[in-house]
Amino acid sequence: MTSFQSFKEYYVPKIDQQLSNQILSIEAPVILKEAMNYSLAAGGKRVRPLFLLAVLDFLKVKHGEALAVGATIEMVHTYSLIHDDLPSMDNDDFRRGKLTNHKVYGEALAILAGDGLLTYSFGALARLKEVPAENKLELIHLLSKAAGAEGMVGGQVLDIESERKKVTVDELETIHINKTGALLSFSIEAGAILAQVDDNIRKALTDFGFHIGLAFQIQDDILDIEGTTEELGKTAGKDVASEKNTYPSLLTLNGAKDKRDWHYDQAVLSLRQISDEPGILDELAAYIVNRHN
Amino acid sequence: MTSFQSFKEYYVPKIDQQLSNQILSIEAPVILKEAMNYSLAAGGKRVRPLFLLAVLDFLKVKHGEALAVGATIEMVHTYSLIHDDLPSMDNDDFRRGKLTNHKVYGEALAILAGDGLLTYSFGALARLKEVPAENKLELIHLLSKAAGAEGMVGGQVLDIESERKKVTVDELETIHINKTGALLSFSIEAGAILAQVDDNIRKALTDFGFHIGLAFQIQDDILDIEGTTEELGKTAGKDVASEKNTYPSLLTLNGAKDKRDWHYDQAVLSLRQISDEPGILDELAAYIVNRHN
Repeated sequence: MTSFQSFKEYYVPKIDQQLSNQILSIEAPVILKEAMNYSLAAGGKRVRPLFLLAVLDFLKVKHGEALAVGATIEMVHTYSLIHDDLPSMDNDDFRRGKLTNHKVYGEALAILAGDGLLTYSFGALARLKEVPAENKLELIHLLSKAAGAEGMVGGQVLDIESERKKVTVDELETIHINKTGALLSFSIEAGAILAQVDDNIRKALTDFGFHIGLAFQIQDDILDIEGTTEELGKTAGKDVASEKNTYPSLLTLNGAKDKRDWHYDQAVLSLRQISDEPGILDELAAYIVNRHN
Repeated sequence: MTSFQSFKEYYVPKIDQQLSNQILSIEAPVILKEAMNYSLAAGGKRVRPLFLLAVLDFLKVKHGEALAVGATIEMVHTYSLIHDDLPSMDNDDFRRGKLTNHKVYGEALAILAGDGLLTYSFGALARLKEVPAENKLELIHLLSKAAGAEGMVGGQVLDIESERKKVTVDELETIHINKTGALLSFSIEAGAILAQVDDNIRKALTDFGFHIGLAFQIQDDILDIEGTTEELGKTAGKDVASEKNTYPSLLTLNGAKDKRDWHYDQAVLSLRQISDEPGILDELAAYIVNRHN
């Protein structure tokens, strides 16, 4: 077993527990808490919290609220999946091998469960106890940018707009930097903020986040072609069938793999600016580009 | 012209300008900014920002960022209207006499415009310049509660759940305390936070917010019966037609008016605990219960 595997096996149940505890503590209608919890508990790789935790591990900093911040980011990610899956958006019936939120709870409750998760996350950051006030405000400011119109929400709009036309590789990159990259990068920057690193280290980690975010998305596109529906927990080949703009469709499959590997290499080089010694964070990056789901 | 009328005529254009400036400053896809701005610019009474400003006026405190905070709350209110109007929720085609967001931009963009407004609002609070860090965090924490599963989102869920059954007056009150009261109360509490008042004054203002929030909602229900579609900018009589649980349906029209007036009286009494001298805030409260739209 690699050290990353034991890292993951140690932390993923703790992340799950944290998510479940946070939802339980909310005083809200039972059906709403159920809908919020349904998508949180539907599994997922917990990539964003793991990145935050791996950044702290890489920096050799322990932080009592890293799990809480990681869980908050996972909530924002989950809200975005619930809304993206809606009939008026991607209209997906399955996610992670389970029925999507609106297929179980109906559209209205799915929209509200997403709204509830997003709204909760900002309050959760504001209530952190071991993070200085100015750092909490920076986390909130950056999460708002990464998740909002200037980041994830904007990226989803660009993605929808691109559906009816052929885009360039640069345009596709802009979509993904916003749609998936921004929140993934935030999880890495959040680790840097909790660790209170200097500007140079923060810059190197931000660069790492940028490149690994793109590598992550390119691998997603590759998996739609190479993965099976069983492995993915969602319909494989959907991108090709819907003539979606993807890295393989614009660059060929091998071209996409080359681009993924280039971003992976850049990401790793950024880490070497901080430390010569590879850590769990390096393994997580490798996992991102080698994963089968 | 009453002093409230001149207050309103002075501030509403400033609130509108603030909203428009904030949207313009966002770096996001044009169509998304358009959709976000469409509903913000569709008018509305700007009740929540006016409450915040009137609280500061009542406390004789000037604050350079009161408009910015008020605009932020209006954004959260507007996001909630966009989502509430969606086909899977209230399915409204008109709002304030104009087509609803999804009728103009489609459901996907309407959902995302709402998400964008909500997400932006928390960042805007974090970026305030003249508010101490601890107060900004308190605003974010309270907004998250008021707008989220424990407040507005939870209230909307209760409202949807109540559609198929008869509720008691207490249950109806719980719905409205959450669905409309929580954010309205927050706008009043936000004024108290910006003014940094002591606990007694804050308690009196919180009580004021609770009662005026309920009076506001009861008047909404009354207007659905007594108002015309032209006055309201939305279909009058919709509640009766859909057999919705309302104060008039549970208490009779006169019973609802009595309850509205009782809450109004309680609200005014709370203000008298702070000052013997009625102010703009008193007039705003009176406007709330006497308005025709």
